[in-house]
Amino acid sequence: MATNELKLLGCWFSPFTCRVQIALNIKGLEYDNIVESYYPKSDLLLQSNPVYKKIPVFSHGDKIICESPIIVEYLDQVWKDNGAPSILPSNAFDRAMARFWVAYIDDKFFNPMRSGLIAQDEESMKKHFEQVEQVFMRLEDVINKCNNEGMEFFGGDKIGYIDIGFGCYISWVRATEKIKGIKLLDETKTPALVKWAEAFAVHPAVKGVVPETNKLVEFVKGFVQRLVDATPQ
Amino acid sequence: MATNELKLLGCWFSPFTCRVQIALNIKGLEYDNIVESYYPKSDLLLQSNPVYKKIPVFSHGDKIICESPIIVEYLDQVWKDNGAPSILPSNAFDRAMARFWVAYIDDKFFNPMRSGLIAQDEESMKKHFEQVEQVFMRLEDVINKCNNEGMEFFGGDKIGYIDIGFGCYISWVRATEKIKGIKLLDETKTPALVKWAEAFAVHPAVKGVVPETNKLVEFVKGFVQRLVDATPQ
Repeated sequence: MATNELKLLGCWFSPFTCRVQIALNIKGLEYDNIVESYYPKSDLLLQSNPVYKKIPVFSHGDKIICESPIIVEYLDQVWKDNGAPSILPSNAFDRAMARFWVAYIDDKFFNPMRSGLIAQDEESMKKHFEQVEQVFMRLEDVINKCNNEGMEFFGGDKIGYIDIGFGCYISWVRATEKIKGIKLLDETKTPALVKWAEAFAVHPAVKGVVPETNKLVEFVKGFVQRLVDATPQ
Repeated sequence: MATNELKLLGCWFSPFTCRVQIALNIKGLEYDNIVESYYPKSDLLLQSNPVYKKIPVFSHGDKIICESPIIVEYLDQVWKDNGAPSILPSNAFDRAMARFWVAYIDDKFFNPMRSGLIAQDEESMKKHFEQVEQVFMRLEDVINKCNNEGMEFFGGDKIGYIDIGFGCYISWVRATEKIKGIKLLDETKTPALVKWAEAFAVHPAVKGVVPETNKLVEFVKGFVQRLVDATPQ
């Protein structure tokens, strides 16, 4: 596949961009990495994703695909026979479960995490981060079940759809912990998830893709300030 | 497939339950229809969907699957070779597009629709229903493109994933129009979508599944009152 056939429009700090990058790495695909300016949004972004105007946008020749879970499924289907590992399970029920948990993570994790980050008072912050911890507790149950069946990752002995779907947020969790001076991913509460996060971070398809914590901390501080400025108090 | 192998826990008024019923009809599958009491939620619902505590819940033997888009994909994968039509396109890009639009509909349509229904002042109602109309305008473009290629439905010459994903809401649109005395699905603005909605409603897999408008009007009035009572003004 010629490099210029595959293009990814994204940003280094975007967990959703990371998802696609990890999936492309798993599949061993080369691609053009196009950096989105984001502030302000580029004409390319506005034209290629007119519905959401959000990154990542993936191009495969003249085909444009948006929304990270959908892009990952697309990559997995198109390059299912190139010798690389599959990302979603082939079994229909396991596949349904993988989709369920990724949708759950996107539904229940991102908003409370963001709200906790921009919360200006202790009580409000605590309330939002309690919801984040509830997500961790549920995922602890899921990864524990995997571990009990001898599997290191949600995807089994290799990282898969849930690993990518949740793992992309781990750098943001670490950065949030540093900024707020709190512990979110706590090994006394979710030991299996902490162990999973460590194994995920050093996986060859992940390393170098997810942002380095200190670099992200600086970005997140500016990101939070912009959100605070834009949010009615 | 023995009837008692397949069970659907749902409600007649739930658009999400309707999605699964239509998919089961397309696949020609018999199933036990278990009526959820919902007010209050049954023990069966709380036990079988502890994460969301929402209908529909689909059981295939001892396998339990929640969330209507995920259930529909599951049905399509498991019964892909039973002679019935497929629900999702087989082509990876068309599949990605189908997932994109159903996710868009669930993201952008349901909340404004609900907010418009419970809005107590004209201005607020108008604002929410304008968002609903924006969704219609986008879908008008999509169905127009299908029509121009000689296809009656989003799914081609047969109903598919987007048809089910959006069609399940049409009865709620009709009921809302009656209750509020307004026109939402307007043939002067979205003629192709209006024509599509008529063809969808009389499709053999749909007829008898989606609620009859007058019956739904009575239910929606009570539903709205409960939401209004529960919403801080």
